[in-house]
Amino acid sequence: MSEQRTEITTLGEFGLIEHLTKNFETHNASTVLSVGDDAAVIDHFGKQTVVTTDLLLEGIHFDLMYTPLKHLGYKAVMVNLSDVYAMNAQPTQITISIGISNRFSVEAITEFYEGVHIACEKHGVDLVGGDTSSSQKGFVISVTAIGEVAPDKFVKRSTAGVGDLICVSGDLGGAFLGLTLMEREKKIYLENPGVQPDLEDESYIVGRLLKPEARKEIISFFAENNITPTAMMDVSDGISSDVLHLCKQSVVGCRIYEEKLPISDESRRAAFKFGLDPTVCALNGGEDYELLFTLKQEDHDKITLNEDISVIGYVVDINEGSKLLTKGGNTFDITAQGWTAFKES
Amino acid sequence: MSEQRTEITTLGEFGLIEHLTKNFETHNASTVLSVGDDAAVIDHFGKQTVVTTDLLLEGIHFDLMYTPLKHLGYKAVMVNLSDVYAMNAQPTQITISIGISNRFSVEAITEFYEGVHIACEKHGVDLVGGDTSSSQKGFVISVTAIGEVAPDKFVKRSTAGVGDLICVSGDLGGAFLGLTLMEREKKIYLENPGVQPDLEDESYIVGRLLKPEARKEIISFFAENNITPTAMMDVSDGISSDVLHLCKQSVVGCRIYEEKLPISDESRRAAFKFGLDPTVCALNGGEDYELLFTLKQEDHDKITLNEDISVIGYVVDINEGSKLLTKGGNTFDITAQGWTAFKES
Repeated sequence: MSEQRTEITTLGEFGLIEHLTKNFETHNASTVLSVGDDAAVIDHFGKQTVVTTDLLLEGIHFDLMYTPLKHLGYKAVMVNLSDVYAMNAQPTQITISIGISNRFSVEAITEFYEGVHIACEKHGVDLVGGDTSSSQKGFVISVTAIGEVAPDKFVKRSTAGVGDLICVSGDLGGAFLGLTLMEREKKIYLENPGVQPDLEDESYIVGRLLKPEARKEIISFFAENNITPTAMMDVSDGISSDVLHLCKQSVVGCRIYEEKLPISDESRRAAFKFGLDPTVCALNGGEDYELLFTLKQEDHDKITLNEDISVIGYVVDINEGSKLLTKGGNTFDITAQGWTAFKES
Repeated sequence: MSEQRTEITTLGEFGLIEHLTKNFETHNASTVLSVGDDAAVIDHFGKQTVVTTDLLLEGIHFDLMYTPLKHLGYKAVMVNLSDVYAMNAQPTQITISIGISNRFSVEAITEFYEGVHIACEKHGVDLVGGDTSSSQKGFVISVTAIGEVAPDKFVKRSTAGVGDLICVSGDLGGAFLGLTLMEREKKIYLENPGVQPDLEDESYIVGRLLKPEARKEIISFFAENNITPTAMMDVSDGISSDVLHLCKQSVVGCRIYEEKLPISDESRRAAFKFGLDPTVCALNGGEDYELLFTLKQEDHDKITLNEDISVIGYVVDINEGSKLLTKGGNTFDITAQGWTAFKES
């Protein structure tokens, strides 16, 4: 180890990746797009290949106490397919590597793979390889997804233009509310192991957490209606953080309307029950795996009939900043740690 | 979890993978070769793409007590490139995901990436993506490598034919002897922390362990001399285990000559020092990352001038079994747990 010691937290995840990869140059003409987007793009004579990978670690990304293994397998695939769709591409193959300790039985791992299988079937994706290894402690999952896209039809994060509409698919905050519920139920269970949780009324938010769906139909809708977003990424960290990320990469600012944020009735009800502001949950809750994209204004008519797409704001010059316009007529800076910042305002 | 509990050890790694992936069917015409070889093959209109992935876990695959992070980064890339070469393909891109606990500083991770960078530069490979995540404990590394191969020029493990020559590149057992040395030095150090290890005389075997080289030049040699092996895989588990694996997939048996096993002088010397049989080390030591391949007999003349390739045996009918012919004229069954079995004979 070197003598100097800089804590990783001082750089943050994106800063760290930037720091680590800045000396890497591209050698292959086939490398069309490299580090820094939802996926990389590789040219293959007539079609372009998209590659993305995710690492999921027990205790960091999932809690086996309330995550059935079948759901975990399903979700591990979905979060990667979501990255492929976020490039405007179609997923075709995945590889999956797992590290497992001997506390897992063959039956348990089989359940995990059943979830993987259902996800693959649903999206017409082939499992083509992987690696199975023992781990000392904890369950480790690494998935790589490969997809294809017509030449130069892939959509990056860095190409949003001033005046573009900012859109999002589906609704926001549900997965975070599902997580809040599960963490609360876990705490109750640990204190009173006899009490069985009743999650029936909350199946929507629990499903949003445990069984996210990669938005294939949105990409199909784009293809059918001849729509090419100007920029796109998937919503994994929370829309406020992800909007900022897209704006930063596109070197633009934004205006987001609080009242336009799509929030389901189920999420609203759950938020009130937990004493949380639904808007804050929608802005800062992660893991929704919806698609965030920007669109030229002249394409607006093409999306109005799709009830699954909401226009939540528009792109402005970088000097105008990234701001949320509230229902009450106030303006707040959007921050990646929007949760705290917004509450303090 | 299911009611039944089958221990993973009852199936073994390959049995487990077979069990888990047996229900997965192929949907995409582009999926040329799926699970079960060094890498998968994907068709991309004129070129074929090869994909392979490996998961490396601290405490299972590496010990940071004697593995410098720069070497670890280098090795994590090499073991994946080795799988690409083992398909007779050229690696072009990699993705790398890491999970790190807060005991690692930015400087430490930067060292790791320096090793990744050197490996990429050496093989003309582009780092195109990845994922950086915190881990609760231990260092987790997942690498996926992508390569390309001319249509149908990829070489599988399952296509060796009776009468083919069995060949291996480089020499065997060195990495295992390096590991034996490092484990011994670690034990000495833990007992007497003041003693500094002197590894200078053992740089060859230490290098074989810590800095393996994927055999690009062997694949180039094949291309230059118009050689296509009938079957190929890389030597990662040990030649006895890997030969059995290739034979099983090709539904054939083999004869291996003890005296033909390539063993370096340095490895021989180290083996004697540790009281080990060099042949046993060569047969059962893993992580050599050499190429094991079979060749039609008529191609024999094409390889005789390459001193880096040894013919170690030949392929026989499956009914004749897989056997080692010793210098002393004895015949032993080759077993995947050859270490024990061979010593007991």
